[in-house]
Parts: sequence; structure tokens; C-alpha cells
Amino acid sequence: MLGRYIPILRWGRHYSTETFGRDLMAAVIVTIMLIPQSLAYALLAGLPPEIGLYASILPLVGYAIFGSSTSLAVGPVAVVSLMTASALGRLSLEGADYVSAAIMLALLSGGILLLMGLFRLGFIANFLSHPVIAGFITASGLIIATSQLGGLLGIRSEGHALPELVLSLAANIASINPYTLAVGAASLAALIWIRTSLKGQLSRLGLRSGLANLIVRAGPVLVVLGSIAASAAFDLSSRGVAVVGDVPQGLPLLAVPGIDLGLMANLLVPAFIISIVGFVESISVAQTLAARKRERIDPDQELLGLGAANIAAAIGSGYPVTGGFARSVVNHDAGAATPAAGAFTAIGIALATLLLTPFLALLPKATLAATIVVAVLALVDLSILGKTWRYSRADFIAVALTLVGTLLVGVEIGISLGVAASILIFLYRTSKPHMAIVGRVSGTEHFRNIKRHTVETTPGIVSLRVDESLYFANARFLEDAIYEIVAQQPELRHVVLMCPAVNAIDMSALESLETINDRLLTLGVSLHLSEVKGPVMDRLKRSHFLEALTGRVFLSQHEAITTLSGPAR
Amino acid sequence: MLGRYIPILRWGRHYSTETFGRDLMAAVIVTIMLIPQSLAYALLAGLPPEIGLYASILPLVGYAIFGSSTSLAVGPVAVVSLMTASALGRLSLEGADYVSAAIMLALLSGGILLLMGLFRLGFIANFLSHPVIAGFITASGLIIATSQLGGLLGIRSEGHALPELVLSLAANIASINPYTLAVGAASLAALIWIRTSLKGQLSRLGLRSGLANLIVRAGPVLVVLGSIAASAAFDLSSRGVAVVGDVPQGLPLLAVPGIDLGLMANLLVPAFIISIVGFVESISVAQTLAARKRERIDPDQELLGLGAANIAAAIGSGYPVTGGFARSVVNHDAGAATPAAGAFTAIGIALATLLLTPFLALLPKATLAATIVVAVLALVDLSILGKTWRYSRADFIAVALTLVGTLLVGVEIGISLGVAASILIFLYRTSKPHMAIVGRVSGTEHFRNIKRHTVETTPGIVSLRVDESLYFANARFLEDAIYEIVAQQPELRHVVLMCPAVNAIDMSALESLETINDRLLTLGVSLHLSEVKGPVMDRLKRSHFLEALTGRVFLSQHEAITTLSGPAR
Repeated sequence: MLGRYIPILRWGRHYSTETFGRDLMAAVIVTIMLIPQSLAYALLAGLPPEIGLYASILPLVGYAIFGSSTSLAVGPVAVVSLMTASALGRLSLEGADYVSAAIMLALLSGGILLLMGLFRLGFIANFLSHPVIAGFITASGLIIATSQLGGLLGIRSEGHALPELVLSLAANIASINPYTLAVGAASLAALIWIRTSLKGQLSRLGLRSGLANLIVRAGPVLVVLGSIAASAAFDLSSRGVAVVGDVPQGLPLLAVPGIDLGLMANLLVPAFIISIVGFVESISVAQTLAARKRERIDPDQELLGLGAANIAAAIGSGYPVTGGFARSVVNHDAGAATPAAGAFTAIGIALATLLLTPFLALLPKATLAATIVVAVLALVDLSILGKTWRYSRADFIAVALTLVGTLLVGVEIGISLGVAASILIFLYRTSKPHMAIVGRVSGTEHFRNIKRHTVETTPGIVSLRVDESLYFANARFLEDAIYEIVAQQPELRHVVLMCPAVNAIDMSALESLETINDRLLTLGVSLHLSEVKGPVMDRLKRSHFLEALTGRVFLSQHEAITTLSGPAR
Repeated sequence: MLGRYIPILRWGRHYSTETFGRDLMAAVIVTIMLIPQSLAYALLAGLPPEIGLYASILPLVGYAIFGSSTSLAVGPVAVVSLMTASALGRLSLEGADYVSAAIMLALLSGGILLLMGLFRLGFIANFLSHPVIAGFITASGLIIATSQLGGLLGIRSEGHALPELVLSLAANIASINPYTLAVGAASLAALIWIRTSLKGQLSRLGLRSGLANLIVRAGPVLVVLGSIAASAAFDLSSRGVAVVGDVPQGLPLLAVPGIDLGLMANLLVPAFIISIVGFVESISVAQTLAARKRERIDPDQELLGLGAANIAAAIGSGYPVTGGFARSVVNHDAGAATPAAGAFTAIGIALATLLLTPFLALLPKATLAATIVVAVLALVDLSILGKTWRYSRADFIAVALTLVGTLLVGVEIGISLGVAASILIFLYRTSKPHMAIVGRVSGTEHFRNIKRHTVETTPGIVSLRVDESLYFANARFLEDAIYEIVAQQPELRHVVLMCPAVNAIDMSALESLETINDRLLTLGVSLHLSEVKGPVMDRLKRSHFLEALTGRVFLSQHEAITTLSGPAR
């Protein structure tokens, strides 16, 4: 029974030495990759670097217990870090208060995800359309890359949207630190070389493609080590290069976060948006990787897994986490077989907080900025604009609004604009449905639009196909359309409403149909329906409409025309 | 050209003596009916009584020029007066400031209606479903009736929602004034008798039904005259009966309202809601009466007409107005032939402000309260609850939320809840569409649900009919449904997606179809489409989907099955 909600109870039973070996191998690679990322994303979120490490310990354990994906690697990710910075930035908090607010955000986000999972509300995430998410991720990538320019150049930059960032960079451009610039440029060059050329070099040396891939993924840690060495050798800190500085050694204290209702109220909406965005990102990564292994992902279970991860983040002094794309791919490629790989990664990061933090103090922040820039530029994909422009203007508008809104105003407004636009466009479209007068395709029982196909029609009968469910937003539109047709054809005797595309008729539309029926009656015209679907018919039978209907309900349009035009009429 | 936007330029050209006579007759009757209503509704809105009269002068002229209905009588109405009181009540203004805010509300409302008319945005009103409007009107009627109990009993009552009103009535119940109670009860009894029994009496006296109707409609003015006489005879004012008091004699000063941006920002949302509700109320009255005359109403022109009426209200010291049901019916029954009847009514009311105001000073407010109670009880119709409960739970939820929200919290929250609920329910429904596996009805080319009809199916082929447009909210749902079917049938060779009910495929759904196509390919299953509609096909041709599709697109489901199961395969 419990196994239904706690997957570890299922897979844990069959855990073998072989699986252990695979999970451990994957955990080592992911740990190496995760250390610099955790530090970097914490700085992106405006938090002390150790919070990034903490967010890579307990949350991974939480997900390992409740999550269902065997490949997903959770932890701090770029977009959610930017959203955290944006949510907390508005509260003008400093130091410990800022950290507490980040912890509260993780708690709220975890609670929201858990509730959505328990009440099976995962479908809410479906309202974030693919194009909106694509536009949002691209815009976030651009904002994050811009925000890291300050770190690369050694100047201050502020803000979580493009105009503010660009202005603050421009204002401080004179104070570029040449040493920081050198470290930043060198790190960036090294990281780009690793990403674009290292694999080719390794292959030429005869390495297997899989192994070469893993080395490439772990490459950034070499850049980190190199820049720590350079920092120590040239005493870069005394030359004005910002370094990570003292990172507290040891594991995070476990604590139930203090409840501050005012703060919670302020963070509720951002927490909700972070939860939904994090969930959508995570589930699409999990599903893509699951398909490769022919596994299936249960979205509601994933909500529980991510909820547990975020609550664990709150308890272990972290901040909001979700599944990361790059590290999940690494985890998958390295052979992770069960969620236990995540738990082993957590142990790896915990060891790092115990043993490695003294060395991290000298790490130049410019190197971390370079890590972020290289990671997020992979997110930027403007082709979605062209794709949607060609396919559907409605989708294009939603993407463009998301992109521009996120870039110019910020992440929350941007994504809200996109979701609102896609819903409004959908409502607008369904409120003015496509309708077609249909006739029979010669020699068949099939009826199509008279404007698009060569078809036969019968005098005195108009067959109108309505291409939409009938509901409040289009009920009046239907009335107008029918009166228009009737006004144009004085010799009309029968109107057949062909309903294969009418998936529902709500109360407003029912009342409109009653009005149409009444008005046609006074004009001596009968109203018939054809191809009414089962669920719609069930409902109509519960009203008085069918008794009042002047005409009949036909199973098929063919039957309607045969009967109405037949000699027996 | 101009005639398109200014109907008076069309009908004014053919204006005849006969039409003039009919319009004048209607105007006299409507004027008699409108005088007590204008005073009463102004008091309901918390405004001095003369504002009600002013709102019945210029707005009628504005509508006569720009409106398109030949029957609609505009002016102050009960529901909009309640909404005005609710919008202004929140601002805690007194005296002249309160009146200025009411004028500003009319200006904003007029501006919103005009803009909606110019940009042809009348469809926005369609999102107010019939059941939501019915629930809202009923709840408003109940609130208004309760709010007038104070006036009938001579005690203070406050608030614009039921709990506050009931509490304040209960708190002041001890201070009932017996004279007020007597006047209120007598007025109420007289008005109810006029409404329920007078017509029968007049018919027995041999009057024509039409004439009897008009006398009944004008009856309330007799009650007003009677109570003024009683007030004078017994000096009721000195016995604690609240009377209308001095009403300034003369026409309103024309003025362009002062612009106060802070006030405008506060009133924008209420003005929008008032505009939409007023428009929906007005257009449904106008359309009902137009149908009786076989005329048609252009909703966008009505927006211009009502917009002009409200801007005229702002210029002529009035408050928000719209078309009233009862008085429009009277106008129609009395024979109004053109919108000029409204302009003549305006002259009638103007004469009243010049000549009759001295007599109104003695009018007991309890009589006006009784007028309102009798008028609004006609609005209360709880049957909508039962009707929607039987027909559709979704509609019932929307009505119930509107009703309870309006009664308990207030008009703006109530109607917003109803609109939000109906839209969310619609989105929820379309996000989990009905799908049916179909087979051929024996001896026909018609395909229906295998669960509802006796049909023939072909081994190795599954035909799935999706009963909804494919869009972001249900794209993932479709993927899951297809994988589920494929998992259950290992010997499957072809999946045919039957699309007669798919009215659109957006970018998200297109990507899902591409994913489905790819995954089925790896399983050796072909994906086919059938009965794809013209507009959907046009769009698919603009993407690369059709090239990647493993199967074919068939004109009809019959053709699909014949081809796929044929020996030539």
C-alpha cells in the first residue's frame, strides 16, 4: 500500500550489488559536476556558497525516497536560482534574514508540490504550454548570462531583468578589474574549449565515446581547481579579485524553519510559480530519460518526490531545488540504475562540505560566473520564435510576450503573461468557432465543407457543422450565425446542426439552442441535430430541449439527409 | 458613412408624424414610471434623489443618438445602483465627493463601453454565462430587498452584502418608527395589489389588455402621490418619518467632470464590471424586444449607445445607467417606434425637475423603499439552481459560487468568482478530453464509440476519436492515453487518430503528436490521421509533421479502415 506513494519500498527490495556499483559510479561523476554548480547557483540566487552545497545534500535524499525517476538528479538549478533571487530581491532583506527567506521559499514550494501531488493536481502544470516554457527558459538564460557579466569583469551589477542589469553594468563599466577579467576570460575559454573540443581530442586519443563524454562533463571541476591554484599562486584576492571566501566547514544544522506568516504571504505566489516551473522542467527531463530506458514516469509521484526534496531543502538549510537537465543526462549516461544514485551523490557532497571547503575559499567568483554563463547559454534557443511564427500566430504571441516580459520586467511577470496570453487566446478562439456549411462528398456517406470540397447539397436543407463545443463564450455567436443563414435563404425548410465536433453543450448554449429552436419555429423552419456524441446526448436527455425540438436527432448526417430529402417526407 | 456609427442619421431621415405620435405616447408613460424609480434608485446608490432624475435626462438623449434598439429605455437601474453603492462605499467619501465619484464612475464606464464598441470587443461580455448572470441578478435582488428593509422600518442599515446588512438591521431593530412602518407597509401593500390584482380589476371593467397593462405600470406613481398627500396631511416628517427633503429645482449644470487620477485608478475595476454587467443586461433586454419586432440588434452599436449614455450621464451630473428591463417592456408595449421615444422621455423628466420637485420634498423614503422592494423581487429567481443542478454540475457550481459570493461578500467578488469558476471549469474539462475507441456501425460508413454502439473493429488497428481540440492543456493527456492503449495491445500495427472533433492543434499539441509518432515508430506501429478538418490541415502543412508521419492522412475514417485492412496492404 505505502509502496504506491513511496517508490523506494518497491525498488529497494530488489537492490543488488550490481545496481549498487552502477549507482555509485554515477554518483561520483555527478558529485564532481555538482560541486562547482552548487556554489555558482547559490551565488546566482544571492545566497552564501555553502547554501548551494546544503541544497545538494538532503533534497537528494528526499527525492531518492519519494521520487520515481531512476535518472533525475535534483539540486540547485539556474532558472530556479534566478527566480529565487527575483522573489527575495523584492523583500530588501540582508544576511541571515535573506537566507531564512530562501529556506522559507523552499518550504512553501515543497508544501505546494506535496499538496498538488496528494490531490493529483499535476494537470495544472499543463497550462504552461511548450512554447511558453521555451520562451521563458531562453529569456531566463539571457538574463542569467547578462547578470554574470559583472562577475566576469569584476564590477557590480544589480537587478533581475535586462534593463536594470544593463544599466548597472554600464554605470560601473569604468571599474573593471583587469585581474578578474583575466581569470574570467581564461575560465570561460577553458570551459568553452572543454565543451566544444575536448571530446574530439579524447576520441582521437582512443577513448570510448561514453567515457569521453563523462570526462567532458567533469571537466569544469578541473577549471575550478586550476583557478584555485592560480588564485593561491598570484594571491589574486589582494589584487581585487573577488573570491568565494570562508565557507563554513561541516554539515548544515537541521532545523524546522521558523514560521513567519507575513513572510509566507509575501512568498506564496513566487513559491507557486517556482513550484510549477520547477515541476515542468523536471518532469520533461525525467520523461525524456525514462523514454530512453522504456520506463514510465508518474507525474503525481514526481510531485511528491520534488515536494519531499524541497521540504528536505528547507530542513537542511538549502533553497528551492528541482531536477536539472545537464546533470540528469550525466547521471543517466553514467549508468544510474535507481534513485539511490541521488542519495550517494548527497553523501559525496556532504563529504565535500566536511573536507573541501578550506580550498574553496580561494576560488575566484569569476570562475563560477564563467561556469554559469557556459551552462545557461545552452538554454538559450531563439528558434522557438521562428517555429511558432510559421506554425501559429497565437503561439507566437504567447512566446513573444513571455520572452519580452521576462527579459524586460522579470521572471514572474514574464511567465504569468505567457500563461495568461495562451489561455486568453484559447478562450478567444473557442468563442468565435469555425463553422462550415457541409454537403455530401459524391459517392460516399461523408460530409465536408462546401467551400473546400466538391459536394452535393439538397435544396431547402442547410447542414451546418459547428467546429467547437458549445458553451457560454460562443453561444450567442451560434445564434447570430444561424439567423444570418436563415435570413439569406427564404425557401429554407430544415436546418441540420451537425455535431461531431461538439464535445459539450453547457447551460448557456442549451438556452441558446432553445431560443434558436423557438425562433426557427416561428419562421416555419425545423431544427435537427446529427452525430450528437454520447456524453452530450446523455446530458440533453436530462433537459426539456429534446421534447421542444421541432426536428429530430439523427445518428449520422447521412441518415439526416436521406430522411429529410426522401419522398416519404 | 457616419450613419454606420450614428443610427439617428438613418432613422431620423424617415421620421414621420405617425412615428412621432407613437414615440410621444410611449414617452409619457415611461416618464410617469421613471420619476419614482429615478428617485428610489438614486437613494439605493447612496446618492441625493435629484441625481437619479439627472441620470434620466441626458443619458436618454445620448442613447437616442447612438443606440440601435427602438425599444430600450435607459436610465438608473436597481442592480447597477447597488454596484455603484458598493464601488463608492469602499472609498469612505462624504457629500459632494461621493457625488463626484459617482459621476466619475459614469465617465469611466462610458469610456470603457465606447472603447469596447470602437474596437468591437463586445464578445468579452460572452464570458458572463447565462447561469452566472442569473445567479448574480438573483443575489443582487435579495441584497437590495434586504437593504430596503431599513427604509421600510425606519431604521438604519448599512453594507452591500447580506451579513453586514442583517447585522446592522438586527442592531437597530429596537428603533423602529411606527409611522414609517405604517407608510412602508401601506405602500408595499398598494404596490403589490397594483402588480397582482389591478389588471384583473381593470379587465373586468372592460379595459383593453394593453391599456390595462400601461395603467398597472404607471400605478406606482399613484402610490407616490398618495404618500405625499398623507405626508402633508399628517405632517409625517415631524413624527420621525424620513422624507426625501428639499430637491434642488431646475436642470443639472452641464460640466466636464474633473479628472482625479487616484480616484480613477480606484474606480477602474468596478467601472469595468459595471460596464459589462450593464451591457449584458441591456443587450438581452434589447434582443428580446427586437425579436418581437423582427428587428436585429448590433451588439457593438449597443456598446456605443450605452457608452454615449454614460458619458452623457457624467456630463449631466448623473451616475451609471443602462437599459432597464421593466421600463423597456413598457416603452415597447406603449408603442415606441424609434429611439426618439427616449429623447422625449428625457424632456419629460427635465420638466419634472423644473416643476415637480417642490412636491417631492414631502415624499416618505419608505414609499421609495417599497417601490424598490417590489421592483427587485421580480428579479429573484432561484430556479436556476435546480435547473443547472439537473443539467450540469459545472454550471451549478458557477451559479452557486456567484450567488453565495455575491450574497456573502459583495457584488464584485461574487460576479468575479462566477466568471472565474466558469472559465476554470471549461479549461479543466478541455484539459481532460473525452476519448473513444470507435468501430464501424454495421452496414454504414459511420463510426461510433465501441462502448455505446454495436460496431465492427479490425484486428491490429485501433481507431481513437479525440473529442476535443488538441492544445497545451491536454497535449500530455493525449500522449498518456495513446501509450496506455499501445501498452495493452502488443499485436497493434496501426493507430488511427480520428479527428472530426479536433478543431485546432496548437504548437504544444503538435510537439506531442511528433513525440507520439516517434515513439510509435520505435514500437513498429504506424500513426494515421482521419477526418482532419480543413483549417487544421492547412496548419499541419506548414510544419514538418506530415513529412515525419509514419502513416497517412485519410479524408474519412471509412477510407482509413478500408485501406488499412484491405488485402493490398
